[in-house]
Order: sequence, then structure tokens, then C-alpha cells
Amino acid sequence: MAEYVKLPINVLDDFCMTAFKKLGFKKSECRIITDVLIMSDKFGIESHGMQRLVRYHKGIEKGTIVVGAAPEVVKETSTTAVIDAHDGMGQLAGHKAMQLAIKKAKKSGVGIVSVRNSNHFGIAGYYAKMASDAGLLGMAFTNSEAIMVPTFGKLAMLGSNPIAIAMPAEPYDFFFDASTTVVTRGKLEMYNKMGKPLPEGWALNKDGKASSDAPDVLANIVAKNGGGIMPLGGNTEVLGSHKGYGYGMICEIFSSILSMGMTSNYTMQNGKSGICHGFIAINPANFGDPDAIREHLSTYLRELRESPKAEGAERIYTHGEKEVEATERILREGAPVNVNTLREMVEFANFVGINPKKYFGDAVDKISDSKMFSGNY
Amino acid sequence: MAEYVKLPINVLDDFCMTAFKKLGFKKSECRIITDVLIMSDKFGIESHGMQRLVRYHKGIEKGTIVVGAAPEVVKETSTTAVIDAHDGMGQLAGHKAMQLAIKKAKKSGVGIVSVRNSNHFGIAGYYAKMASDAGLLGMAFTNSEAIMVPTFGKLAMLGSNPIAIAMPAEPYDFFFDASTTVVTRGKLEMYNKMGKPLPEGWALNKDGKASSDAPDVLANIVAKNGGGIMPLGGNTEVLGSHKGYGYGMICEIFSSILSMGMTSNYTMQNGKSGICHGFIAINPANFGDPDAIREHLSTYLRELRESPKAEGAERIYTHGEKEVEATERILREGAPVNVNTLREMVEFANFVGINPKKYFGDAVDKISDSKMFSGNY
Repeated sequence: MAEYVKLPINVLDDFCMTAFKKLGFKKSECRIITDVLIMSDKFGIESHGMQRLVRYHKGIEKGTIVVGAAPEVVKETSTTAVIDAHDGMGQLAGHKAMQLAIKKAKKSGVGIVSVRNSNHFGIAGYYAKMASDAGLLGMAFTNSEAIMVPTFGKLAMLGSNPIAIAMPAEPYDFFFDASTTVVTRGKLEMYNKMGKPLPEGWALNKDGKASSDAPDVLANIVAKNGGGIMPLGGNTEVLGSHKGYGYGMICEIFSSILSMGMTSNYTMQNGKSGICHGFIAINPANFGDPDAIREHLSTYLRELRESPKAEGAERIYTHGEKEVEATERILREGAPVNVNTLREMVEFANFVGINPKKYFGDAVDKISDSKMFSGNY
Repeated sequence: MAEYVKLPINVLDDFCMTAFKKLGFKKSECRIITDVLIMSDKFGIESHGMQRLVRYHKGIEKGTIVVGAAPEVVKETSTTAVIDAHDGMGQLAGHKAMQLAIKKAKKSGVGIVSVRNSNHFGIAGYYAKMASDAGLLGMAFTNSEAIMVPTFGKLAMLGSNPIAIAMPAEPYDFFFDASTTVVTRGKLEMYNKMGKPLPEGWALNKDGKASSDAPDVLANIVAKNGGGIMPLGGNTEVLGSHKGYGYGMICEIFSSILSMGMTSNYTMQNGKSGICHGFIAINPANFGDPDAIREHLSTYLRELRESPKAEGAERIYTHGEKEVEATERILREGAPVNVNTLREMVEFANFVGINPKKYFGDAVDKISDSKMFSGNY
């Protein structure tokens, strides 16, 4: 099992703010980048918070991510816009795009913004939540490096292609954020680190056959030899593989197709990211009394939670509950940070010239004890 | 195995036009209803074409479907609208709603229309295709009688809740239309008729446990004893059950929540349907040169089809291909109609006072040979 240390959220926040400032980002930019990353750690989504720092750090070093690039609105109407991120941080383009979608939704009922030439933008849910925090229905999409193998294929042609949606409700917003692959690559890496075989129905080997061999699958993904992760629904039509593949396509349409950006199969090649995003904001007030609509959704969510449980199941969740509970726990107890991730954070600190001990204290000493560095970015 | 007869599409078309006219629908209304039903048969989606006639016929008889009800726009802005279908045929409300969404998209870039108090509207894809036929990106959603059991639950709380999307492309449009359950109830009924056990990962018994017993599952669904169909992703989080459940919620939001209509768990009770729909049309021209966007999508679809196949697989489909090929075949060879369905059509003909032999000729004689009437509406 992987070793973890617990670090308070405010420490992670301070660290990110300082580290990105040292990399040359403006304070307002550091705030956005940090907010997106920290939300992931607060939600307990380890794969998209601090664990991603190394990718941003390496991306900036290699020039895939351009510090100081300003996302540019290249086409705009009262309800739509296209933004060229000019290879800047995905969080900055994403934040600007959803802000614009929200503004349009407040004025015209709906705002749809599609972004091209961007980079990894963190969790899609952050942007959907920007809209629900503003009282709107929000959706966010992003393509990514190809990892999903289409039904009956053997080469990854779509990204993990998450679709996120958030909408105001009581006692907490409806909040759904998930990849359209059956799992994300992070899960495969987790099984790999644990030395456990992958569950059936997750991954394909280089010939497009189902495989539970995590090291082999991951090595083939890195080498682009073929194979990858199955769409939600697996690799046969019996369990709906073509549906997960279809949801992946919806994500691609709102991100790379409408923006005329790179489809997933072209991203992250030749020193260029090319990642694309999509954002939708919709004002419930254009459909009726927004308070009544919020109440209507809240009632349904309550009915779902209170509906009869399967034999052996303790509770039924509605989407967003787990994130609220994780946030309460993590704010109280600190965020669990894998020592490998901490090692990367220390390297990042050294790279930008700040003292890691100042932030992480004695936890830094744990690193030398750990031998579980996967080295697999 | 079920017995089939083949009937030419124009015969089915004539029959529907006449039968609905006899029920009191205007000619323009008959045209819309027939078009929606026939598209399903042309696409080879047996469950939503002629097989549905009996439900419409019974719905009208029982008063769940009101002939002559006019869908009414109860709220409207430049980009949005809410329609009250006043318990009329779902096809009529759906057609009007998507027409309105298309008009708004052509003028304002985006149109979103949500419909309440409607009935079953046929295949969601029909409405998405209305938009793609008009050069737009189209989406359609509908809730339905509760059939999907939420993750960890044992009572059906969501409908089969399909999400359809269509977008112009060459040589054929991208067209995706699928329930957010792993399969539809029609598939369960098919296995039931064949006397075969259900594949693993499809259905739940009344205690919320996985079941392959089709007659038991179907009987419990009809009696509302509990159980039902799993979300796409099955009934455990390992294979992404919460994701299928989440997509089902997206469908619910665009249909029953925004329209302030009935959520699936309240529909089809006490002589009231209450089904809700949602429609989105988006004009690609608001994002860029629509021809370039169409070409961009077409290229990606071609790359997907031409990408390397899994060992043992012959081809990779893109969504919409199978429907185009089925249409070509069925227009040439006729539509396969189950003899049980034909029996229902004959009953329908007798009910409205038209001579079934005039339409179906000697095929009608096949009915008396068949004993496979499931009686399960």
C-alpha cells in the first residue's frame, strides 16, 4: 500500500500560491490555478490535485505550457464564444471561458464557450460548479491525451473525456463529474503501485483484448503501442460499450469539434498539448421560478436518497454528496498526500527555489523512506 | 425464436397514417407521428416503431393520451421555452419543441426547450436528427416510466432516460441515441420471449440483487415490487454504475426538472402519463465556419472507423452508421415485424375500423399460428 502523509489544506494552498508565483504567474492567476487544484484535494480526488503538480511543472519546463499566455476570445456572439488558449494553463482558459458562459447565460439564458489550444485544466467539475455557485446549471467538458479505445478498436482514439454537470439544490448542489471511460488512468496507476491485477472490464492490451495486467497496459499506453482503457460499458455491446464511446464523443464535440481544435488522438504530441474544453451555462430563471426549480430538484434528490436500499447496501448517494462529506473531513483532518506526490512537490519546491520544509515540515523526511516512485507521468 | 414477417415501409406508413387519422388526429399530426414511428422501423429499432402502436392505441383508449390536445408554449425567451403538452401525443409536443429550438438556434445561436405533461415520444434520435437535418447540432432527452434503479437502490427511480445527439457530418451525420440504462426494457422482453437467461449486469430482482431471471424481473417491474434495470455501468462503482446513474440524471434535468414536470418516479400513475422531454439545438455557425466544422467532425469520424481493430473485430463503427445501413436494407427488403406486433396492429386496425388485410395481405394469416403473445404492455 502507498504511504500517505496528511497536510492541512491551507498549507497546500500557500504552497501552490507561492510555487506558481515563482513560475511567473500573476497573483490573480495563481489564485485560479490553486483554487482548481485545491478543490480536487478537498473532494478527495487525489488524481487531479497535488498529484498533477508535477505535470504542470514539467509542462512549463518543456514549454508545452506557456506562462503568460493570455486566452483570447476569437469569435463571440450573444450566446456563444470560441477561445484560443494559446497554450496557456488550462485553468486560466477554463475559468475565463466559464465566466464568459455565465455572463451570457445571465443575459441571454444560455452561454456556450468552446476552447482550443489549451492544457490540462484540473477537474471539470470546478467549472460546472462555478455556474451552480452563480445559481445556474453548468456543464464542463474536456478532451485529453487519447486513452479510450473505441468499441472494437485497439488504439486509444478518445481521451478520458469527462462530462461534468452541476445545478443548485438543497442541502447541497447536484454535482456530477466523471470520465466517460470506465475508469481513469489514475486508477490503473493505483493498481499498478499496489501490484494488484486490474478488475475485469477496465483495460485492453495492445491487441485490443481485455487485460488485467496493469504494468503491461500502462507500458503500452506510454509507448503508444496500442490498448488503453475501455469506454464506460466495457468492450462489448452487451454491456453498452458503444454508449460510453458515445458519451466520449459528446465531450469531443463540445470541446475539440466546435472549437476547431485538436481531437484527442492528436493532443500531447510533438511538444504541443492542444487540449480542448467546452463550457455550458444555462439560467433556470429562463424556464421558470428558479427557487421552485431548485426545490423541485432538491425534492427529487431527497427521494432518491431515501428510496429503498439494495440488500446489503447502507445508503444511496446523490451526486455531489460524497464531495461535500470529503471536504468536511479533509478540512478537519488534512488532505492525504501520497509520499510520491510529496516527493514531486519537494522537487517542484526546489525547482522554483522555495524551502519545502517551510511548508511541509517533518513530513519531508518521510520521502527518503519511500521507494515507490513510479516515474510514470 | 420469435416469428417475423417482412412488410414494406410504405405499407407501414400508409397503415399508420390511416389508423391515426381514424383516431381523430389531423393529417399534419398523422404525418409527424408516422414519421417518428417509421424512422424507428427504418433504423431497425424494433422496440420503438410498430411495436409501440399498441401502447398509443391503449393510451388513447384509457385517456392517458388526449387526441386533439395542443402543445402550448407557457414560457419563452429568445433562447429558451417551456411547453406544456397537455397530455397529447409525445411526438406532437416533441416535434413542435424541436422546431422551436431550431428556430431559436438559427436566430440566437442556441435553443433549449423543455416539455412537461407529455407522453412517450418515440425515439429521441428523431428530434436530434431534425436539428442535424437543419445543419445544427441537436440533442434530445426524455424521461419515462421508472425503470432504472439508482446505484445501491432496489426501487426503479429513473426512466430509461435516453440521451440523443446528432451533428452534420459526411458521408453521414453523427447520430447517437441510447438509454442511460445498460439496456432497455425491450431487451429484457426479448430474452423473456426467447426463454433465455439475462446476461450478467443487466437487471435487479426485487431485493436489489443482480438477477438473470427475465420473467421474475419483468413481473416485479409490472407490479412495481422493486427491482428493474441497472444504470449503464452495472450496479457497482467498480464498473461505473454511478456514471450511468449520473447520465440518467442529466436527462432528468433537461426534461422534468427545467420544465417543472414529473420526475420519472411519478410518471405513468393514476391514469396520467406526465412524461417530460428536453431539446437542444446549437448552431455551429456561431462557433466558426459550419462547413469547416462539419469537415473537422467528418475527418475524426473517418479516423475512428479506420483506426486499428481489436483482434477478432471486423470493423469499428461510428454512431449513426448502423442506422444508415439498416435503412438501406429495410427500404430494400421490408421491415421485419414480429408476429405478436402484427397481431397488435390487426387489433388496432379492427379497433379503428380499417381492414388489416388491405394493408398486410396474407401476412395476417400468420397470426393464428403464433402463440407467443406476451400480453405485457
